[in-house]
Amino acid sequence: MKQDIEIAREATLKPISVIAATMGINQDLIEPYGKFIAKVPGKLIDEERVEKSNLILVTAITPTKAGIGKTTVSVGLSLGLARIGKRAVLALREPSLGPCFGQKGGAAGGGYAQVLPMDRINLHFTGDFHAITTANNMIAALLDNYIYQHQTEGFGMKQILWRRVMDVNDRSLRHIVTGLGPHVNGCPQESGFDITPASEIMAILCLASDLEDLERRINHILLGYTLEDKPFYVSDLGVGSAIAVLLKDALNPNLVQTTENTPAFIHGGPFANIAHGCNSIIATKMAMTYGDYVVTEAGFGADLGAEKFLDIKCRKAHIQPKLTVLVATLRGLKMHGGVEERAIRLPHTEGVCRGLRNLDKHIHNLQKFGQTVLVCFNQYADDDAQEIEMVRRHCKEQDVPFALNNAFAQGGAGAEDLARLVVETIEQKPSKPLQLMYADESHISAKIEAVARRIYGASHVTFSADAQRKMERAEQLGCRTFPVCIAKTQYSFSQDPKAYGVTDGFDFEIRDIVINSGAEMIVAIAGNMIRMPGLPKSPQALHIRLVDGEIDGLS
Amino acid sequence: MKQDIEIAREATLKPISVIAATMGINQDLIEPYGKFIAKVPGKLIDEERVEKSNLILVTAITPTKAGIGKTTVSVGLSLGLARIGKRAVLALREPSLGPCFGQKGGAAGGGYAQVLPMDRINLHFTGDFHAITTANNMIAALLDNYIYQHQTEGFGMKQILWRRVMDVNDRSLRHIVTGLGPHVNGCPQESGFDITPASEIMAILCLASDLEDLERRINHILLGYTLEDKPFYVSDLGVGSAIAVLLKDALNPNLVQTTENTPAFIHGGPFANIAHGCNSIIATKMAMTYGDYVVTEAGFGADLGAEKFLDIKCRKAHIQPKLTVLVATLRGLKMHGGVEERAIRLPHTEGVCRGLRNLDKHIHNLQKFGQTVLVCFNQYADDDAQEIEMVRRHCKEQDVPFALNNAFAQGGAGAEDLARLVVETIEQKPSKPLQLMYADESHISAKIEAVARRIYGASHVTFSADAQRKMERAEQLGCRTFPVCIAKTQYSFSQDPKAYGVTDGFDFEIRDIVINSGAEMIVAIAGNMIRMPGLPKSPQALHIRLVDGEIDGLS
Repeated sequence: MKQDIEIAREATLKPISVIAATMGINQDLIEPYGKFIAKVPGKLIDEERVEKSNLILVTAITPTKAGIGKTTVSVGLSLGLARIGKRAVLALREPSLGPCFGQKGGAAGGGYAQVLPMDRINLHFTGDFHAITTANNMIAALLDNYIYQHQTEGFGMKQILWRRVMDVNDRSLRHIVTGLGPHVNGCPQESGFDITPASEIMAILCLASDLEDLERRINHILLGYTLEDKPFYVSDLGVGSAIAVLLKDALNPNLVQTTENTPAFIHGGPFANIAHGCNSIIATKMAMTYGDYVVTEAGFGADLGAEKFLDIKCRKAHIQPKLTVLVATLRGLKMHGGVEERAIRLPHTEGVCRGLRNLDKHIHNLQKFGQTVLVCFNQYADDDAQEIEMVRRHCKEQDVPFALNNAFAQGGAGAEDLARLVVETIEQKPSKPLQLMYADESHISAKIEAVARRIYGASHVTFSADAQRKMERAEQLGCRTFPVCIAKTQYSFSQDPKAYGVTDGFDFEIRDIVINSGAEMIVAIAGNMIRMPGLPKSPQALHIRLVDGEIDGLS
Repeated sequence: MKQDIEIAREATLKPISVIAATMGINQDLIEPYGKFIAKVPGKLIDEERVEKSNLILVTAITPTKAGIGKTTVSVGLSLGLARIGKRAVLALREPSLGPCFGQKGGAAGGGYAQVLPMDRINLHFTGDFHAITTANNMIAALLDNYIYQHQTEGFGMKQILWRRVMDVNDRSLRHIVTGLGPHVNGCPQESGFDITPASEIMAILCLASDLEDLERRINHILLGYTLEDKPFYVSDLGVGSAIAVLLKDALNPNLVQTTENTPAFIHGGPFANIAHGCNSIIATKMAMTYGDYVVTEAGFGADLGAEKFLDIKCRKAHIQPKLTVLVATLRGLKMHGGVEERAIRLPHTEGVCRGLRNLDKHIHNLQKFGQTVLVCFNQYADDDAQEIEMVRRHCKEQDVPFALNNAFAQGGAGAEDLARLVVETIEQKPSKPLQLMYADESHISAKIEAVARRIYGASHVTFSADAQRKMERAEQLGCRTFPVCIAKTQYSFSQDPKAYGVTDGFDFEIRDIVINSGAEMIVAIAGNMIRMPGLPKSPQALHIRLVDGEIDGLS
């Protein structure tokens, strides 16, 4: 089969004004970025139409290192829905540029189920990530400058929480010392850079309801503590509005098209571990304004992505999915069934059978939220028919709808059955009203415990002394009502990345707490979270190049 | 009078496709970025039409801290030319975002002589600066990663020349130590950030003739020296093409319009001290393809900006101005006449008279290049009529054409006389063929001496031992034929920023040499060059804000 970028290049794109027009958006209202990308003003969101739209969440079983193919299924499902005559709109995250030059490919779907133009989406796109990088680093510069300019008045910071960001995989910047050299270079300080999707600004952009809310949240960002141990916010610098100015255009969602010319909003890309990992609320609501069926996804497996999608995003945005599509692959099931990674491409019926426990646990978890679950089997060319049949039978026995997705190889035609089953299931048995895992007014520790016990299967949650202190501080600072965002490995239900399948009755330890008081969430960290990836010995940059003016080597 | 941003907001902009159409560019060929900005593909440059176009260079006397108003004159002249029926196109630099949040305002002209939309031009614009930042820092990450991944094979760098960049005024990043913490964070190293316009990538973008040339130059960037003291280039990393991919769109010039709906290309913004300080060759040639009269400017005073424009840009691009417009103000002349800065707004006939020596020296210098010089007097509301008359008489006595510019207050109507005189002068007495200050094949030190003696008025040039060693190295590395780019204070002819007026017979000392082997120029540094500005105690960020969704406080 052809490479993703070859398929992308062969696709015939329609002008973005035509895509907008088919959705009913007047072309005078959009801001084009080249011929095939446009920003759509957030004010076009119509809450009444949002209310009536059918939101479909695509999530997955616990993923392998190569992923389960959620984006490809999401794109495929939207293509399938369009083929059976439905007004379907996609809402997806924007990919980060940095990793495209490292190990992994882009994040714009795959095969014949892609969003296009994939090279621009994967690289600078409409500059949203650059605007976030600039806004984040402008705050850092203004903060350091404030300290430098006010030191003679006795002002100083006991602790600075704010870090800089860059959308490049640069391990050397994880831990740095700044302000060296002569006095005019500022005050020496330990600091570091995260990758841009890990910025709190990214999370804020994805959760803000409008420009005013964005500015309010920026002002509330906690930057650190003064020498008197008082919290110091962006509002104390007096620059919240100036920073919002930098994000004014970035806040509007980006409209692109799929390989089959159906509409897709691609907007916001927060990390799925230390942030909530889904596209912006504005993009989802925009898609729901113009689509009868809106397909969206959440990062990593359902324990992380779907939980945060429901407990954070849906809670804030007052939306809820009519259906959750849980994606599984034979490779994933085998890994959870104890098959070694190097053998998961080979038939192993028993492994698949054992791996179904992971699938079941995710189904069961999603049902706790009141979700109707449909299992989508994401097909690979070398999959064994008998093994697929086994998964289908297993789902049938549990009365869980099951469908194949073959959009990677066949485009929308490979997802028509899936689309029909999705529509039928939503009509006959839509999700119940959303049941969140915890109430706003619970204690922060109780919120973390609710997720750890009810979703992960932990029997006990412990908190480090540091985490405990910070939770107390968060409550003192008025952050009690914030949802929690648990950062843990995506490779298992616990904090042990090697605990494939299902683990039960384990001890879950929260090592650290981060107060995202602008994003209005409490990040609880279990394990070590890398916020700035590195590059491999042979980075993808070696293969990215221009051939006759066209970009090659992006995947 | 109204603020710049108020005037900008009140202007009625035409769709950029209409602006393109009036120039004869088919709207299908442009890439819109919003309704009022577009990128124009570089391949539309037509060398035959470039040959026939009348290029006008706008430069200035030695500037005050507030500048002399070159950009306002440049915009005004193009408005005036359009008013008298000429096809006039502007070619200007892109402003840097960082300084807009610090002390100075934007750089998109002023009053009724602006390029629009000024808020977008001053902030993210089409993302060119962001693309350059990313390309620059991607090289840094790939280099550090190469060292980290190959250290067990005995590879290491004796000296790393490459620094990171950011388009934010952040003094704390001037001097940093990276790679701290555990081994996986890379190798500890001294390093630092410059502001983005100081990146060699910016200079390369402005000097490249096309995408192929861009890639060739990126591959030639000298990153440092290995432990064996061998030069190490981007080509040794094998990523020149991947970096060019990041700059593919940034290389195309940006089309916008003026306050009177005439076309302007705004593209590239290299520092005017450690780089050559003018917009891209591609933008100038694009403007010359579509304009009978093309107005462009060069940074700082004529000793720096015009010298580099002629000796570097014109040398490389094989273009030459038909006329050079030298901008002067009463305030500038008074400063050079020994009037203290706080008094330069008040009448002081004698001061003006003494200050004319600075004007004369610049005229004389420009004539050495074979340029016909026209003095443009940039008018301020409180200027004294008698003093203006004195300058006019002085120019007349020397047979130098003289005209007023009042476009700041009156728009194009205030520059019609200037425009008529420009056209008349070009028709009657265009510049002679360009005479460069030095030949390609001269020694590097001889090139520096030629500029220092013939333009600055130095009697003697000395080189530090370090500079001498680096010049030798540059010659060994095959850089002998590169032009030199002298970095010195913009406030005087010498390296002493307080030496107003004219200085003669001084000793000029070159402290350091930077080999820009990708940009193909040798930077010779006299004095201390700040490559990363800081923020003031009360930064402009305090005043930038959103009012009813519109940006306020940018100037």
